[in-house]
Amino acid sequence: MKITTTINELKNIIRAEKENGLSVGFVPTMGYLHEGHLTLVSQAKQEQDLVVMSIFVNPLQFGPNEDFDSYPRDFERDEALAREVGVDILFYPSVEEMYPKEPTITMTVQKRVNVLCGKKREGHFDGVVTVVSKLFNIVEPDVAYFGLKDAQQVAVIQGLVDDLSFSVEIRPVPTVREDDGLAKSSRNVRLTEDERKEAPIIYQTLLKMQKQVQKNNMVISDEIAQLMMNEFDEGKHGTLEYIEIYSYPELESMKELKGKIIIAAAVQYKNARLIDNVILTVEENE
Amino acid sequence: MKITTTINELKNIIRAEKENGLSVGFVPTMGYLHEGHLTLVSQAKQEQDLVVMSIFVNPLQFGPNEDFDSYPRDFERDEALAREVGVDILFYPSVEEMYPKEPTITMTVQKRVNVLCGKKREGHFDGVVTVVSKLFNIVEPDVAYFGLKDAQQVAVIQGLVDDLSFSVEIRPVPTVREDDGLAKSSRNVRLTEDERKEAPIIYQTLLKMQKQVQKNNMVISDEIAQLMMNEFDEGKHGTLEYIEIYSYPELESMKELKGKIIIAAAVQYKNARLIDNVILTVEENE
Repeated sequence: MKITTTINELKNIIRAEKENGLSVGFVPTMGYLHEGHLTLVSQAKQEQDLVVMSIFVNPLQFGPNEDFDSYPRDFERDEALAREVGVDILFYPSVEEMYPKEPTITMTVQKRVNVLCGKKREGHFDGVVTVVSKLFNIVEPDVAYFGLKDAQQVAVIQGLVDDLSFSVEIRPVPTVREDDGLAKSSRNVRLTEDERKEAPIIYQTLLKMQKQVQKNNMVISDEIAQLMMNEFDEGKHGTLEYIEIYSYPELESMKELKGKIIIAAAVQYKNARLIDNVILTVEENE
Repeated sequence: MKITTTINELKNIIRAEKENGLSVGFVPTMGYLHEGHLTLVSQAKQEQDLVVMSIFVNPLQFGPNEDFDSYPRDFERDEALAREVGVDILFYPSVEEMYPKEPTITMTVQKRVNVLCGKKREGHFDGVVTVVSKLFNIVEPDVAYFGLKDAQQVAVIQGLVDDLSFSVEIRPVPTVREDDGLAKSSRNVRLTEDERKEAPIIYQTLLKMQKQVQKNNMVISDEIAQLMMNEFDEGKHGTLEYIEIYSYPELESMKELKGKIIIAAAVQYKNARLIDNVILTVEENE
């Protein structure tokens, strides 16, 4: 595994590989790798000749009251994990390397952001699309891998790629789950024993709702949402923060549920906020 | 010369050529080609294996009161000229092809814009960087050619490339001039005979000022500007709109003139607004 901290060296390494006709898969991360990241790498390994991973805690996507400084970092551990799972090139730039000057250009996400988690994180996705644009320009990957657990991020990045005609394919990778269905997350360890026992209700409810939608397709989404709220009230420990249904990836409200839709929820536990979603296609009735 | 109107076809054509190891030069235009554009192509021809020209009147860079609808278009003439001067691939997309949906992302230029012509054209450069980003992603050129007559545009695009690490080199091409020094422009034909006789004063004055700056380097720029204002008062027909001195390409005011600087002017004649500039490097005194 090659490790580089500079944009120019990375560009040179990748250019040389591309001249040999190798395809490039890209897994951008903020480090502190967990199984979700490693699944992205595994899929990239299966599909591409070369896998590039970046580890960069991007200050632009943290709000003023968010935890940029205290965001967990452990490069030694990340390096070992990346090597183990077969990353070919690891890009680990400093903030100074990525943003040496005040920006002359800013990017703003105008759609797909004022719903789900984006509602509460003003400016977050502006920082995401800025760093992702820069990373795409540096790595010039054939395919970039993103976890569907953060389906809103995937939707926003697909919008970026479509708008600006980036020559990269966005590959959304399904959420990895525990045996009981709970979406894997580094935050799960912060759950109390009781909360951990309860947490699978999130995915179970999403699945129930999925069935409901598929059975009574074209149902007004508000009604479905209400059903979900009731279902979630069974939970004794977590507080349902939102449960919402939108078209996907547009993330727009729908009067009738048809086409590709997302059902997404966030639940606040004492020390962890968990998110999960299902994406499904509602066929129109004949 | 190949002509294509679709992004996908253009990407495929260029990708095939790149696989043969050909270097790609890119000349983005809004059409209605004049000698300035053709000079860009000539230089690109000298330096690159393949020259791609785009002709696209970009609605995003026109203000609400600007002349998008009446902007001159003559594709047949442009096509003939492009073929004559040796363009290899001509990209001529519709607005629908470039912007099929409402954008999910917008780009805003934060620096280098509130001076010179940018002061009066709010949002203009936002539209420029958006279309240039998209065109760069589509063409993936090795080098892109821009005329230095619009030095502010070159500065803004260099900022874009630096910020987002585009893998393209920006090649600024010196302004082409008439024998008497007047910068060539499609607007020159709108000058009256008397105005045309007077107009070379713009460049002559810029040159005088350049000498002045080089002789008395480190002079406060306000004083230089005053000298220039006086010089321009000799003009009987045109009205000096601005004459300004900035660092280049940062376009920031300087207390002391040193390093790379631009002296730029705009003069309003009856039916034509002319711009010109000189860029020079002021060496520090020993």
